[in-house]
Amino acid sequence: MSEAHQSLAAFRHFREKMNKAIHDAENLTINRFFALDSRAYEQGALDAKTKELMGLAASMVLRCDDCVTYHLIRCREEGVTDEELFEAFSVSLIVGGSIVIPHLRRAVAALEELPAP
Amino acid sequence: MSEAHQSLAAFRHFREKMNKAIHDAENLTINRFFALDSRAYEQGALDAKTKELMGLAASMVLRCDDCVTYHLIRCREEGVTDEELFEAFSVSLIVGGSIVIPHLRRAVAALEELPAP
Amino acid sequence: MSEAHQSLAAFRHFREKMNKAIHDAENLTINRFFALDSRAYEQGALDAKTKELMGLAASMVLRCDDCVTYHLIRCREEGVTDEELFEAFSVSLIVGGSIVIPHLRRAVAALEELPAP
Amino acid sequence: MSEAHQSLAAFRHFREKMNKAIHDAENLTINRFFALDSRAYEQGALDAKTKELMGLAASMVLRCDDCVTYHLIRCREEGVTDEELFEAFSVSLIVGGSIVIPHLRRAVAALEELPAP
Amino acid sequence: MSEAHQSLAAFRHFREKMNKAIHDAENLTINRFFALDSRAYEQGALDAKTKELMGLAASMVLRCDDCVTYHLIRCREEGVTDEELFEAFSVSLIVGGSIVIPHLRRAVAALEELPAP
Amino acid sequence: MSEAHQSLAAFRHFREKMNKAIHDAENLTINRFFALDSRAYEQGALDAKTKELMGLAASMVLRCDDCVTYHLIRCREEGVTDEELFEAFSVSLIVGGSIVIPHLRRAVAALEELPAP
Repeated sequence: MSEAHQSLAAFRHFREKMNKAIHDAENLTINRFFALDSRAYEQGALDAKTKELMGLAASMVLRCDDCVTYHLIRCREEGVTDEELFEAFSVSLIVGGSIVIPHLRRAVAALEELPAP
Repeated sequence: MSEAHQSLAAFRHFREKMNKAIHDAENLTINRFFALDSRAYEQGALDAKTKELMGLAASMVLRCDDCVTYHLIRCREEGVTDEELFEAFSVSLIVGGSIVIPHLRRAVAALEELPAP
Repeated sequence: MSEAHQSLAAFRHFREKMNKAIHDAENLTINRFFALDSRAYEQGALDAKTKELMGLAASMVLRCDDCVTYHLIRCREEGVTDEELFEAFSVSLIVGGSIVIPHLRRAVAALEELPAP
Repeated sequence: MSEAHQSLAAFRHFREKMNKAIHDAENLTINRFFALDSRAYEQGALDAKTKELMGLAASMVLRCDDCVTYHLIRCREEGVTDEELFEAFSVSLIVGGSIVIPHLRRAVAALEELPAP
Repeated sequence: MSEAHQSLAAFRHFREKMNKAIHDAENLTINRFFALDSRAYEQGALDAKTKELMGLAASMVLRCDDCVTYHLIRCREEGVTDEELFEAFSVSLIVGGSIVIPHLRRAVAALEELPAP
Repeated sequence: MSEAHQSLAAFRHFREKMNKAIHDAENLTINRFFALDSRAYEQGALDAKTKELMGLAASMVLRCDDCVTYHLIRCREEGVTDEELFEAFSVSLIVGGSIVIPHLRRAVAALEELPAP
């Protein structure tokens, strides 16, 4: 059995603390990858909202709860509505199948802390 | 490191609460998928027990703890014995390899709350 | 080693022939899933182009060549440009890592048969 | 794009030739694993047919064409009918989602060389 | 959202307790697999340190936190330094992409309990 | 069913041709990722041979034939012997399970074109 839900505050605290520890280890490949990871979602030919929705769908089908939470936060910052999020969830569910459902449950639980714009 | 174990009661409570929240969002694709998901395990040419064992094996090799827990509950309802479950675990372990082991540990922990029929 | 490339015509022919064989087997769950699969990409709160880009990203990180080819065809029908496609590829590559690269190569080979709109 | 289909004869020839080459390399861990792999599907508390159906479902959701082909051959030897196979496919499709579909197409193509018992 | 971190003591306690329960179920295939799993990492043509680093990289790209923790413990026993571990992390991150990052965070958190040799 | 085997020459030709096409598309994120991908395997605290063996194990458990072929070529350049390769295969097989076997077969077939140093 898997965990139910973690508060967004706890998620953010652990994420920032460990990102700093990783950065401070000064592995150049890792630090450059982190920079590229931020760069990939910046507006270009596609806008940031579309890229975040792609990141959300990719994270859901790969079943990475932390990645889903991160992209949900970013989607809300880009003004994505509940209806749009559930359509993104529906594409992820069809592509990834019922094994996506436990992650969908946790995503919807996270949304309770991320009110619609 | 991953979580050790969650009580079945907590699993069921969170599952039912979030399934309701998902249903109430009224995304037609998602709601129809949930209906199909139930339908797939109903007795047909194969009986429900065989289908639940297939769902269990698929869930173990995909390493989805919540899915494993759900199918363990259903397997017990279909009268699957301990010996049969461990044979299903052994097929899953051979197909999926040692990365299945942490999920096998949590499955066996869940069985302590799901006594043999 | 994996295959290099298959013509789009061969892809479409096999896909249509086997989809018909699957449909004709008259398994209700499978046929309903195929219908849901089409439905999930229809315009709703999100437009079809965004949904196809999400489907493309999900397919790339799950490393499904046939799924990537299908969504590339659909993206072109929705008017997605080369520059937009490569941004979608870049998000997929960052999320999924270097194991995505062989699929990226085959996707770019497929694009040679799918000229920009 | 992925390959369409390979004849069963070619599959069996390559499989046997390479299994022999692997065996002849005399790595004890590998050779013992191959022995365990055969052992896992032998009749025990569960019969061989049920175990092959579990192996088939696990192979489909993990999207391993060669594994699917192998278990289809074994399922036919155990007398599994077309209707039973499509129910096994339907469970796999619901668990694994639309990324299973290309493998389902190739499985159904393989069945044309594996007539119903 | 996923769990943040579990103490090494809790990890070891649960692991040993459940390994014993699995062993006591006396499924021969499972027990032989556990024996093979230990054997695979013993010094042979490759030394134990190299094999543990391979096990660590494989566990990170498959995103198995418990497996990562286990191989970190073993790597420390084999004298692997912080700098070597971060190079192993960097290979895993490049192969597996940003979905590896949450597991990298938890691996680095675990290292705080596993001081350099 | 999956493909059996492709010659190393065909693999290299397609790889180089498509890598050039990807490079020429001038997506900065993608091109930087390719540079990082090369950098990750350079000698550092760990030598190139160990890193290639980690890349090989990661590629096998993720079941990426092209990635396996590439790391086999690089392993041979680093002087890895047959016996060492089969130990790397054995770790990959134990971690990843029987679904690794079809990729092991193709890896061993590729070795026929990559004689021991």
